[in-house]
Amino acid sequence: MTTKKVAIIGASGYSGEELVRLLLHHPHVELAAVTSRQNAGQTVAQIFPKFASHPISKTLRFSEPNAEVLARQADIVFLALPHGVAAEFAVPLLDAGCVVIDLSADFRLKSAAAYKEFYAHDHPAPKLLKKSVYGLPEIYREQIKTALLVASPGCYPTSILLPVIPLLRAGIIKPTGIIADSLSGVSGAGRKAEADYLFVECNESARPYGVPKHRHLSEIEEQLSFAANAKVTIQFTPHLIPVNRGILTTLYLAPEKHFASAAEVVSLGEAIAECYQDAYGHEPFVRLLDGNSLPDTKNVAGTNVIEIAWRLDRRTGRLIVMSAEDNIVKGASGQAVQSMNLLCGFPETAGLV
Amino acid sequence: MTTKKVAIIGASGYSGEELVRLLLHHPHVELAAVTSRQNAGQTVAQIFPKFASHPISKTLRFSEPNAEVLARQADIVFLALPHGVAAEFAVPLLDAGCVVIDLSADFRLKSAAAYKEFYAHDHPAPKLLKKSVYGLPEIYREQIKTALLVASPGCYPTSILLPVIPLLRAGIIKPTGIIADSLSGVSGAGRKAEADYLFVECNESARPYGVPKHRHLSEIEEQLSFAANAKVTIQFTPHLIPVNRGILTTLYLAPEKHFASAAEVVSLGEAIAECYQDAYGHEPFVRLLDGNSLPDTKNVAGTNVIEIAWRLDRRTGRLIVMSAEDNIVKGASGQAVQSMNLLCGFPETAGLV
Amino acid sequence: MTTKKVAIIGASGYSGEELVRLLLHHPHVELAAVTSRQNAGQTVAQIFPKFASHPISKTLRFSEPNAEVLARQADIVFLALPHGVAAEFAVPLLDAGCVVIDLSADFRLKSAAAYKEFYAHDHPAPKLLKKSVYGLPEIYREQIKTALLVASPGCYPTSILLPVIPLLRAGIIKPTGIIADSLSGVSGAGRKAEADYLFVECNESARPYGVPKHRHLSEIEEQLSFAANAKVTIQFTPHLIPVNRGILTTLYLAPEKHFASAAEVVSLGEAIAECYQDAYGHEPFVRLLDGNSLPDTKNVAGTNVIEIAWRLDRRTGRLIVMSAEDNIVKGASGQAVQSMNLLCGFPETAGLV
Amino acid sequence: MTTKKVAIIGASGYSGEELVRLLLHHPHVELAAVTSRQNAGQTVAQIFPKFASHPISKTLRFSEPNAEVLARQADIVFLALPHGVAAEFAVPLLDAGCVVIDLSADFRLKSAAAYKEFYAHDHPAPKLLKKSVYGLPEIYREQIKTALLVASPGCYPTSILLPVIPLLRAGIIKPTGIIADSLSGVSGAGRKAEADYLFVECNESARPYGVPKHRHLSEIEEQLSFAANAKVTIQFTPHLIPVNRGILTTLYLAPEKHFASAAEVVSLGEAIAECYQDAYGHEPFVRLLDGNSLPDTKNVAGTNVIEIAWRLDRRTGRLIVMSAEDNIVKGASGQAVQSMNLLCGFPETAGLV
Repeated sequence: MTTKKVAIIGASGYSGEELVRLLLHHPHVELAAVTSRQNAGQTVAQIFPKFASHPISKTLRFSEPNAEVLARQADIVFLALPHGVAAEFAVPLLDAGCVVIDLSADFRLKSAAAYKEFYAHDHPAPKLLKKSVYGLPEIYREQIKTALLVASPGCYPTSILLPVIPLLRAGIIKPTGIIADSLSGVSGAGRKAEADYLFVECNESARPYGVPKHRHLSEIEEQLSFAANAKVTIQFTPHLIPVNRGILTTLYLAPEKHFASAAEVVSLGEAIAECYQDAYGHEPFVRLLDGNSLPDTKNVAGTNVIEIAWRLDRRTGRLIVMSAEDNIVKGASGQAVQSMNLLCGFPETAGLV
Repeated sequence: MTTKKVAIIGASGYSGEELVRLLLHHPHVELAAVTSRQNAGQTVAQIFPKFASHPISKTLRFSEPNAEVLARQADIVFLALPHGVAAEFAVPLLDAGCVVIDLSADFRLKSAAAYKEFYAHDHPAPKLLKKSVYGLPEIYREQIKTALLVASPGCYPTSILLPVIPLLRAGIIKPTGIIADSLSGVSGAGRKAEADYLFVECNESARPYGVPKHRHLSEIEEQLSFAANAKVTIQFTPHLIPVNRGILTTLYLAPEKHFASAAEVVSLGEAIAECYQDAYGHEPFVRLLDGNSLPDTKNVAGTNVIEIAWRLDRRTGRLIVMSAEDNIVKGASGQAVQSMNLLCGFPETAGLV
Repeated sequence: MTTKKVAIIGASGYSGEELVRLLLHHPHVELAAVTSRQNAGQTVAQIFPKFASHPISKTLRFSEPNAEVLARQADIVFLALPHGVAAEFAVPLLDAGCVVIDLSADFRLKSAAAYKEFYAHDHPAPKLLKKSVYGLPEIYREQIKTALLVASPGCYPTSILLPVIPLLRAGIIKPTGIIADSLSGVSGAGRKAEADYLFVECNESARPYGVPKHRHLSEIEEQLSFAANAKVTIQFTPHLIPVNRGILTTLYLAPEKHFASAAEVVSLGEAIAECYQDAYGHEPFVRLLDGNSLPDTKNVAGTNVIEIAWRLDRRTGRLIVMSAEDNIVKGASGQAVQSMNLLCGFPETAGLV
Repeated sequence: MTTKKVAIIGASGYSGEELVRLLLHHPHVELAAVTSRQNAGQTVAQIFPKFASHPISKTLRFSEPNAEVLARQADIVFLALPHGVAAEFAVPLLDAGCVVIDLSADFRLKSAAAYKEFYAHDHPAPKLLKKSVYGLPEIYREQIKTALLVASPGCYPTSILLPVIPLLRAGIIKPTGIIADSLSGVSGAGRKAEADYLFVECNESARPYGVPKHRHLSEIEEQLSFAANAKVTIQFTPHLIPVNRGILTTLYLAPEKHFASAAEVVSLGEAIAECYQDAYGHEPFVRLLDGNSLPDTKNVAGTNVIEIAWRLDRRTGRLIVMSAEDNIVKGASGQAVQSMNLLCGFPETAGLV
């Protein structure tokens, strides 16, 4: 297998750091460049002592981000940048022939209007929206294989879309009335030196935020609408809890079929189980829980796995689906590497197990 | 004001410990007895070093629980016992003329049938169900003042009932489709030596449990049904998060009135604000948040305060209400002391600020 | 008792916030002013939602710090400012007749040379060093009663000085070879928006810092030298651990007397116990642990208490003394209020229990 | 390379679980058996959901521990059992021709008398003490290669011995007066359902324990005595802090040479740096920190690496050495696998990076 050269622009945030970890240990790539304005000139080992045992970390130095230079150094470039900034690099890198895997929100939406509604400014490169592929491998595997620009999904969207899309596609649940209640670890806020994310402010704290209109709604609703073939509007409430890593999402869904009798519960249950089995039974990174098990972020921390479990509530007529993922891995950098594996023809799990 | 003598049966769990803290420092009571089978014979200072600076802690010793003896020692007896066990003590204590404030689930329901459905055994003293008063002071203040048996509410129910009851009573929301998504600190599991609640199992973990039929549903639904004057069935999902104290509840509610236009949003918003202001504007332990503030468990930890905030979501037509409380104080021992203050004629905030 | 008017300059950091909490609830003072450059114009309730249940919090607004204005508003002014800045306010406030209780390091040293050595600039008001009283009430109670300028001790120094000074004064331990190994909660770093103190950087982390010459050494050594009547140099290693509040200090001390036989152990143990009993047996805020108890920060969190326990190690000939305190209360704001109580003639424990 | 079959006796504790993780992913071994009395009959996936993505976890079931059966199933058997129990299995397994890697304390000491002093009962198999090799690869690499019984070191001993042994061997420090102050994560207490290790009891808590004579002293002192060629007695204080994983040890050491002048500091510093470089410069799992870096448990969590840094304190004449390791990996299971790699002739880092 030919080794690919990869670069990370914005390698000093949490997603960037996780990309460094994954790519340093990836069997088929060479980490050729990492950029960071604030850390330019320093080695990876100096900035991330935890990687100092890897030989490359002692020689690889952060550089100033420069699309032209990076295009010469790397075949594939990961963008771990704030939204708005990512597009500035994506355009010249694509022009120079690089494959771009963008972890920001810049190319996740197909609708430039939705982008403007949620991000409050015009999209910086609307033409690219058509070309980008939404990097959810379990849903868009074939498209990712030939993509030149992958828009890797947000952490919350991943935790919501993977459990809901198969149910919508199968017509098992109504596309209306969906509620997603999510708990996120603090790394989701990024490595920003803001008082709100200080240890003392987060420890012994649980709090909602961004109620009721979080930006991630835009990509969640666009993707759910594709799956339902109808415009979907959902309720989404993110909460911050004192863990480093992990998103736990609880979904409240309305089955299309009424289930009141025991027989109806069994029949609907079988349909749901079959739906998930068909969708994810062979997926390496989706763990369908059975028996009494419920998702727990500690069981996925540090991995690219999403856990999914569900329960039918005969009392209320609802289907409760719960998922757990590591927001920085399956919700960000791990999933981006999974896309890279697909588009490079590497084994999909390479560097991720 | 005449000092009352109080006793705590089951003083070694977390609710019991918090009662010790509150009652040791209460200006109008004397903590006359504390019981604990496992700690009998030891002083409060030995078992709870944190209280060792209080002089009584050096002399007050845990005793074996004995209703006859306690009835001679105390005017008011708090029961911090598992459900089922509490009733065994309540009956003889009431017979002996004590006032009983029970923190267990034993006397919270009016319906013995609902008790059996949720607790899986016949109610041990069904006649007392009529006499007991549900100890939610903001809702049942007058009844508590003359109660002989107070059934202090559960921690989750408090976090749900206080935000929802006024809206139901005012007819602002529909009694159907209510969803309560709650996050609880680990003290809610009690001081039980079970592997699931070890530090390593809870730290860096977020997980749902008891899905979809938690026992607390019984009292939540009974109380909401009283408020709505109709049978209410709700969806309730508890989650365990790594904090010591605190419950954060997010409620998804359906307003009776449709609101689509800006004017309708304003009008409905005013109705909600007025409803809460009427219900809680003068309550010492309900904090209605305004501006951009949202509830945060760290702002209520160690206090008897519940924080409430709400948002109308024009996109979905829902009302989102969020509350934060300390599960051990407003959700348990603090609220029990608040009830005691009421029935003793003490200032309602005595020992609680 | 006449109510005193008090002000806090720099009320938005962790020590300042804790002063607000303590002074809002203090029975003999009125919190007349709080300053904060960044929060000027906002109410205490807006900045600290947790205090919003206190009526004054809704009306008291943060102001820009202005010594002249504050001198008219308050009898006593607390300075919760960075070192170097505190002196700028202390001078005009003292001139205007206020009593000043400074929580910074500015007036803790008697030696301006030591100040310069450890703080790397000339002392801004060296004349005041003679007038200031080191605000450790258990050691300098009488001097504090008549002080006009109290230099409230640092958090680490308090945790070290209270256990060591009585032993040095009694000649039980040698003044040489003292080692203090301390663990501090993250609030000790202040409410600074620096990446090092983000939740993700502190959670699941334990790390030493400031090795081997932390600034607090200057006041520790000066005070120990006074107690020993000889120049004392100690080893001090601070560590950061993921708790909000608390300092746990383990001290390695060399008894003057050799103890090898069982009888010598008993005899030395009695001398140590008697020494501590004489020094602190009647102190309201020092808890001497007995039996098998060892200090635990959770038993002092939120209180003005320091716990002390000790063990003789016959194998090594050393005396191990351990202390636990809340770094923000006994290590900062609580101790400052204790000093205020003394100099105002209030009961020493007023507002602190 | 021939694949070896391995078994783990006592696979349900934290060390056992970590062995499962490491051995499931090890390239040269097949995990043939795992035992656990309480979990017998259940699959690895059922007990450890986090490993459920590994195919073997679905079929490999916990069995009752039976030496005879295990001897037929495995070439190498890991014992993750309490001390005293491990020996019962080691004897028949060795007799049956298995290689045994014991993570308990049973075979760490050469002196049966020291065992009795610290563990309060006669050693169950004193003859084996001579045959066992202390499994610290950086120190006993050659002996481990041919060992039949490896006594894998304790977590605290590893964090102390690796930093100290080279200094003692080189004569750089005195063998007297050594002090080790250690902070351990809660996993060090094992998966024991005891109230002391509940989340609520450990979170927001820092506390010393086992003062002054912890059992690990026996192996620490025996090994240091070998290194110094003299009887070494040290001071050791363990503390429990609220992290899942990690030990941070701070060591107070006395250099043989006096260093007062700047030149002496430089010269001694060079000797120390050279000593560590010689000892560990090529070790894959020892990270010698340079520059301003100090050890941090978060940089080694989940890895087999120990970080070491040191500082000379000219003020006190002491050498401060600090180390950080993951108590469950380098302090237990990772190190045991490292020993296995050595004795099987696998690359030493196989399955550990």
